[in-house]
Amino acid sequence: MANLIQHDLSVINIGLSSFGDVIRESGAKAVDLQWQPPAEGNPDIAWQLALLTNDPRIEEANKIAYGRFLAAQPVLVGVKPARDVVPGMDGKIILHSGPPISWERMCGPQQGAVLGAVLFEGWASDLDEARRLVDSGAIKLEPCHHHRAVGPMAGITSPSMPVWIVRDTTGGGEAYSNMNEGLGKVLRFGANGPDVLARLRWMADTMGPALAVIVEEMGGLELKPIMAQALHMGDEVHNRNVAASSLLFRKLTTVALASKRLSQKDTAEVLAFIAGNDHFFLNLSMAACKVMLDAAHGVEHSTLVTVMARNGIEFGVKISGLDTWFTAQAPFIEGLFFPGYGPEDAARDLGDSTITETAGVGGFSMAAAPAIVQFVGGTPKDALANTLRMLHITLGQNAAFTLPALDFTGAPAGIDARLVTDTGIQPVINTGIAHREAGVGQVGAGLTYAPLSCFSQAVSALATTMTFNE
Amino acid sequence: MANLIQHDLSVINIGLSSFGDVIRESGAKAVDLQWQPPAEGNPDIAWQLALLTNDPRIEEANKIAYGRFLAAQPVLVGVKPARDVVPGMDGKIILHSGPPISWERMCGPQQGAVLGAVLFEGWASDLDEARRLVDSGAIKLEPCHHHRAVGPMAGITSPSMPVWIVRDTTGGGEAYSNMNEGLGKVLRFGANGPDVLARLRWMADTMGPALAVIVEEMGGLELKPIMAQALHMGDEVHNRNVAASSLLFRKLTTVALASKRLSQKDTAEVLAFIAGNDHFFLNLSMAACKVMLDAAHGVEHSTLVTVMARNGIEFGVKISGLDTWFTAQAPFIEGLFFPGYGPEDAARDLGDSTITETAGVGGFSMAAAPAIVQFVGGTPKDALANTLRMLHITLGQNAAFTLPALDFTGAPAGIDARLVTDTGIQPVINTGIAHREAGVGQVGAGLTYAPLSCFSQAVSALATTMTFNE
Repeated sequence: MANLIQHDLSVINIGLSSFGDVIRESGAKAVDLQWQPPAEGNPDIAWQLALLTNDPRIEEANKIAYGRFLAAQPVLVGVKPARDVVPGMDGKIILHSGPPISWERMCGPQQGAVLGAVLFEGWASDLDEARRLVDSGAIKLEPCHHHRAVGPMAGITSPSMPVWIVRDTTGGGEAYSNMNEGLGKVLRFGANGPDVLARLRWMADTMGPALAVIVEEMGGLELKPIMAQALHMGDEVHNRNVAASSLLFRKLTTVALASKRLSQKDTAEVLAFIAGNDHFFLNLSMAACKVMLDAAHGVEHSTLVTVMARNGIEFGVKISGLDTWFTAQAPFIEGLFFPGYGPEDAARDLGDSTITETAGVGGFSMAAAPAIVQFVGGTPKDALANTLRMLHITLGQNAAFTLPALDFTGAPAGIDARLVTDTGIQPVINTGIAHREAGVGQVGAGLTYAPLSCFSQAVSALATTMTFNE
Repeated sequence: MANLIQHDLSVINIGLSSFGDVIRESGAKAVDLQWQPPAEGNPDIAWQLALLTNDPRIEEANKIAYGRFLAAQPVLVGVKPARDVVPGMDGKIILHSGPPISWERMCGPQQGAVLGAVLFEGWASDLDEARRLVDSGAIKLEPCHHHRAVGPMAGITSPSMPVWIVRDTTGGGEAYSNMNEGLGKVLRFGANGPDVLARLRWMADTMGPALAVIVEEMGGLELKPIMAQALHMGDEVHNRNVAASSLLFRKLTTVALASKRLSQKDTAEVLAFIAGNDHFFLNLSMAACKVMLDAAHGVEHSTLVTVMARNGIEFGVKISGLDTWFTAQAPFIEGLFFPGYGPEDAARDLGDSTITETAGVGGFSMAAAPAIVQFVGGTPKDALANTLRMLHITLGQNAAFTLPALDFTGAPAGIDARLVTDTGIQPVINTGIAHREAGVGQVGAGLTYAPLSCFSQAVSALATTMTFNE
């Protein structure tokens, strides 16, 4: 018998790490398999998860929802003031990022941005008056996601702001997003000074109308090919958009210079503004992801995640089969801080931009963007590992978005709330870090992870709507 | 004794593969180490190589030459007609790629391009007359490299063509290159029809002067940072330049639109032309590499390779310590052909563009550009392997050009002719494949390898200039 084992014993421990401890204490080697019980050990939800797992109704629903997601063809078709195109934007209404939240509970940057939008709309003439107006309840505050819209960071979108109009030419749906203001003191980080408001006015009066002409004259612009090409150029189209922004700029410029309807001055101003912003494409990437996921939303019984969004206080998730928010406290972000700032300055995770991860890009496609680790921390190997880990919680790989560093395999896409709940693997998110106070701006960038309880709540809620032959 | 070896024997065979065969035939396993004798087994050159190896004069010379290469700061400082800035461009002279070659021996694309340049300059009014003129010897034909210039493919540069002026602000040297015409029927592939000539005239009359204004108003443009950024965006700045071209376009556009000296019509035409060409940056990348390597040229005893260039018939190499061409037959290219074309259509390796590999980008930096394998063949893993292999024949790694996929290690740079001769590892080159007949154009792209004998000749020639205490 002694001959059978000629080497040192190596044990792989599947289960509690204390099993492995006993082996290690006796002098042998043991590796603990990374494992945690489903549903974070909650037996009720684990039971509901078991009921949902392999249920043919859910498998079929997910197939339909995921198929619609893959088939969606987001095309930039226009630019208009929000009130003219976003549903329900009449009167004094301001949209914000993330799940619903009351004015009093909003984080600093989001409050600052709401007040800025009130001034921008001319509903008040100074910050005090703006605050009193919002306090009075005279301004409706609703999530972008309730209006088929998305906005990065504070996400603030008011009726006079120009929005991108992205249409899914397969299913016919539309999604909207506001426009990127660049870096520094900007509304989306809660800044609301005169320079911020002046820029917003210029965007509404000059840039929006010019881009409307350009998009009209270009006859629409398919966004998936630009995103796919950018993934081959080191972008993940959430936190790194330099390639996509550059490709977009080339297309916009060619049309703008050939247009007879734009003044030379406006063309020069608008193109210079866009050329100066490596993140200009982000808002288009978000609107494209939103319309792809909206195509998949509303399939009864589907556990496909169609929304992940944060308001700086709460992280919210929706699944295709239920039009309900499942929320948890928004996490902080682990990453690199700009000089002079540290974790004590950081707001919690904020913005609708994690619609990109929901659609399989952003953190899910980090393998495409090894250079992003200089911005968010970690190593290129970590970037590959993040993408590979997401394969465990997704329904498939999107052949439209291939990743060169992983031999052109498709980006992991279609988060299944059941798989997240079962494995405990949290969706990874690449994101910027906002200062917790209004108006300071971005203080860093890094990675964060969607809270597990959003997904287990969704599983549990779906289970209660279904009947099973137990 | 039997207990000593409890597993099957595994043998690593260092030497002739027939030693391994004997072991394999007896039923055991043997792996042959990839190895070949130095200097391809030529004992005389191997002896000369041994004399040069670790010679302190060479070590010191290479240190100086490599240091100058690293210190060079290529800056785009202007655009002028070649005759106004390239040395020795008075009278009827045409520059071509690669080492010197007579008119009769030139490959088809290069002959076609020479005739096109004669027509473009107005030295003849039709192709027959142009051919008679060149046959008569009335046109001087000299390598670009003899005039501090470089040109892709046929490399044809005539006095009226506008050239980029790139200055090394550290050492003060200048290098020049012609401008990229785009794809399809173009002079650099030997096309010389009316459309080709009309485009060249527009480039000389409109694009060159406009770019001269833009470069002047921008006050110079540092090229290393653009190349470095492009390497983080999936370019290797030889055969893939989409990121660098896009970044350059943003910079040129911003200046062009703010300029008071350009007409709206010219601006629109020039920017549209540039926006339509993913390879527009290539010629700038080449001039930047040329000026960096010229800074390293002319250091007595240095074995640093400062030129690799091909004319479609011969592949030529220079080392810093000797201003002599060492040539061998130009190789064919292994790669992917465009639909309708195959290896029988291909010209031999052609153009000065391998100045990029000489400077450590192009094939040497393939690790930065995994998506290029869709164009040149192979897998992303091969791209990594190519870069890693080049570390064996280079003097160091260029910290200015980092490669994300290899944990931001520097690009292998500074080819040592001794190391190539010793290891038999051939410099890898990413390149386009020209049709062997004039004017058909590009038929594919792929990889090729610099002929070993160019490097062993250089080693041998250098050894004969030195005295040794044997």
